[in-house]
Amino acid sequence: MISRKDILKAAELIKGTAHKTPVLSCCTINKMFGAKIFFKCENFQKAGAFKFRGALTAIKSLDENSKKKGVAAHSSGNHAQALALAARLNGIKAHLVMPSNSSKVKVEAVKDYGAQITFCEPTLEARESTLKNVMDKTNAIEIHPYNNKIIISGQATATIELIDEIGQPDYILAPVGGGGLLSGTALAAHYFSSSTKVIAAEPENANDAYLSFHSKKFSPSINPQTIADGLRTSLGSITYPIILEYVNDIVTVSERSIIDAMRLIWERMKIIVEPSSAVPLAALLENKIHFEKKQPTIGIIVSGGNIDLGELKSYF
Amino acid sequence: MISRKDILKAAELIKGTAHKTPVLSCCTINKMFGAKIFFKCENFQKAGAFKFRGALTAIKSLDENSKKKGVAAHSSGNHAQALALAARLNGIKAHLVMPSNSSKVKVEAVKDYGAQITFCEPTLEARESTLKNVMDKTNAIEIHPYNNKIIISGQATATIELIDEIGQPDYILAPVGGGGLLSGTALAAHYFSSSTKVIAAEPENANDAYLSFHSKKFSPSINPQTIADGLRTSLGSITYPIILEYVNDIVTVSERSIIDAMRLIWERMKIIVEPSSAVPLAALLENKIHFEKKQPTIGIIVSGGNIDLGELKSYF
Repeated sequence: MISRKDILKAAELIKGTAHKTPVLSCCTINKMFGAKIFFKCENFQKAGAFKFRGALTAIKSLDENSKKKGVAAHSSGNHAQALALAARLNGIKAHLVMPSNSSKVKVEAVKDYGAQITFCEPTLEARESTLKNVMDKTNAIEIHPYNNKIIISGQATATIELIDEIGQPDYILAPVGGGGLLSGTALAAHYFSSSTKVIAAEPENANDAYLSFHSKKFSPSINPQTIADGLRTSLGSITYPIILEYVNDIVTVSERSIIDAMRLIWERMKIIVEPSSAVPLAALLENKIHFEKKQPTIGIIVSGGNIDLGELKSYF
Repeated sequence: MISRKDILKAAELIKGTAHKTPVLSCCTINKMFGAKIFFKCENFQKAGAFKFRGALTAIKSLDENSKKKGVAAHSSGNHAQALALAARLNGIKAHLVMPSNSSKVKVEAVKDYGAQITFCEPTLEARESTLKNVMDKTNAIEIHPYNNKIIISGQATATIELIDEIGQPDYILAPVGGGGLLSGTALAAHYFSSSTKVIAAEPENANDAYLSFHSKKFSPSINPQTIADGLRTSLGSITYPIILEYVNDIVTVSERSIIDAMRLIWERMKIIVEPSSAVPLAALLENKIHFEKKQPTIGIIVSGGNIDLGELKSYF
């Protein structure tokens, strides 16, 4: 079990290296939803997403022998960038297995951070077998993007900072993909903001967490098609039980609402968020969450801002 | 002449109503240019641009009798939104003359802020004659968007805040259109940061300020075609002499560089800025400014973030 102490230790480990990201509000959005909404802006985090918190915590937690071996993971997205940067800042090697269809922007970022990239076919099997080969060859330590207690402790630090800044909100909303961010958010609320309800939002086109949560039977994600590319993964053996126990509800949203919510954030808040980050606000747009009081205070974890602007044409 | 006192008075008048906007930095951008760059983010200002500072200062400076009459201006852009919002917050009427081709987003925003809109043909003559009619009918007081000492004092407050936060930078860069922001910036630097050089950047497709500055002979802007829609206006009779006296240099940039700089800010800083705001960074991209020392500290006034996302398709 991840303890209160584990989370505080993660906060201590990343202090001074990870950004204490700003919490922003927008009068227009508050007025639209009759709520006080506080956006915890992990799009301003190093490497552009909350993932840096977990990756840095994991790397700082390695013993000296493991540090010499370096770290490895397969990822097409934000974890790859976060791990590459966290490794470089700590002077250790990072080996990333990336599917051949990864976005050019993300591949370039991982390269810029000095990581070794091995490309593979874009299937889970190829990613896992290629990663195994890389690890066999290099002895590098695998850092799983979410199914890892230290990673989860690191992701929990975003919520710690949010609560430090705004006090205990009535609700915290977070997106859910593999469940690393959501598990960390729910545990942080449990330990440090016990009156807060934690609600997750998920694309209905990738509703494995929604199904797993409500049926209480694990349902994997099978080739989901959603614009929210950070939320396509399935829950893990560590994240699923935490979510079952500590999350209050999971709701789903349409692709249309995700785009509308993203546009609302871009236009009104003047910040760039990636589609995954707009999923909780999409749940408000769809009126999917029943709030028990008027004018609730709501924290929203804005997961990241890594988006290929060249792809925008299809959205707006 | 606008005095040190006038600027401090403006700062006092807008305190608590205008946002003290954040100053952001980006490691990647600093590294690219070998400089420490501090972005003063007026895109997060109320109504999405620095214009709110001037409009609020002007409205708060009206006597009671004038307040009863209301205010008026012609504007297709940020001044219209700023004046409408500043008027509403002070319980006074705003009459805006907007050209019929104004962007829908901006018209909607002005309407939302409760202003009376009169549409006219999209020519300067029609704007001026329609404004005169509106003023004759309503007795409203004209608040010119830039050729107005009180407006200039208000725009100067962005630089006051920047200097308060980062100390005296070696350079401050600002875009120039009508020159309200630039005049305020140069005067604030003159009074409160005398070691700072102020350099303006302008689209080469709208280079009237560049020509007027270097030839020392006023050159108006004639139907300029630039993506930087906030910078199409000519200098005014009040702004031009201030700029001649207090600005160190004006450089021009290409449309391509403006788009590249805007994209760089969006992708790396995760904030939405409008094309006009990217013009100073475009000058760095084009290597147009000769800095006298290595690793200079540079403040950049990010003028605003009001952009029609529907138009993005043509940029990226």
